[in-house]
Amino acid sequence: MPQINICILAVGKIKEHFYQTGIAHYSIRVKPYCNLKITELPEAKWKNKGRFSVKNALQEEAAALGRYIREDAHVVALAAEGRQMNSEDFAFYLERLLIAGQPKVDFIIGGPSGLDEGIKKKADLCLSLSSLTFPHRMVRLVLLEQLYRSFKIIRGEPYHK
Amino acid sequence: MPQINICILAVGKIKEHFYQTGIAHYSIRVKPYCNLKITELPEAKWKNKGRFSVKNALQEEAAALGRYIREDAHVVALAAEGRQMNSEDFAFYLERLLIAGQPKVDFIIGGPSGLDEGIKKKADLCLSLSSLTFPHRMVRLVLLEQLYRSFKIIRGEPYHK
Repeated sequence: MPQINICILAVGKIKEHFYQTGIAHYSIRVKPYCNLKITELPEAKWKNKGRFSVKNALQEEAAALGRYIREDAHVVALAAEGRQMNSEDFAFYLERLLIAGQPKVDFIIGGPSGLDEGIKKKADLCLSLSSLTFPHRMVRLVLLEQLYRSFKIIRGEPYHK
Repeated sequence: MPQINICILAVGKIKEHFYQTGIAHYSIRVKPYCNLKITELPEAKWKNKGRFSVKNALQEEAAALGRYIREDAHVVALAAEGRQMNSEDFAFYLERLLIAGQPKVDFIIGGPSGLDEGIKKKADLCLSLSSLTFPHRMVRLVLLEQLYRSFKIIRGEPYHK
């Protein structure tokens, strides 16, 4: 089976050191199982400039994201209102992509103001990690932990609790 | 309105420093809005002793938790299969408890092996943070972030993104 090639495209900086460390913690654990790249894009500066509405800022961020989304990748947009899965189903979803010969997956995480509706509509899957609203940095942490958990499930390896 | 009095009763140690820092980060932010106490109980040692099954270990943990659950508290057990809410509904749920004169809330978080079914049945609410399985330390982090978010929603204050 080919190795899965995962890109996480995320808008907005991670300010808090503990989130950075946590994201690094799970990234290291995920890397033996896949090619992982995290690309962080800058947040559009609508607050400072004042002349952009939130919607315009999200469109600006969407345009930047669009330049990084790979044409031949399966695109998963993270959105609270998206499809919910349990961890086994998420692992199975990833495994099926691999079996179907789709080894490139781009995960899109919006910034503090959310994610443009156009990106969500164009994505192959809108995935909800929770019906609760999470900070974008928590979304990145939870996604990486779930990727690690998925690979453990796919390989039938124990997850160190 | 009286101040809400929150106890988080959690089984299992938080080993990773970044989780400890993250939990402290949100605990500090929550404390101006409530009385918060986090009580960490030891995990039952079924793995080392060998003679305990997981179920027995969970019952042992449940018995220990039972000694800390306050008789006059509203009890919320965290469980992936529980009731899901969005962040506004969770804030509204907490606000209604306060209005109803129920200022004590005990949140129960199981350890690495989960939470005893008996505790879930006796709880006033089984709350699901996600249909995904989270590590118990992530449950603690997410719960504290959502408590902070709830108080911001209840007070109509902006959440610093």
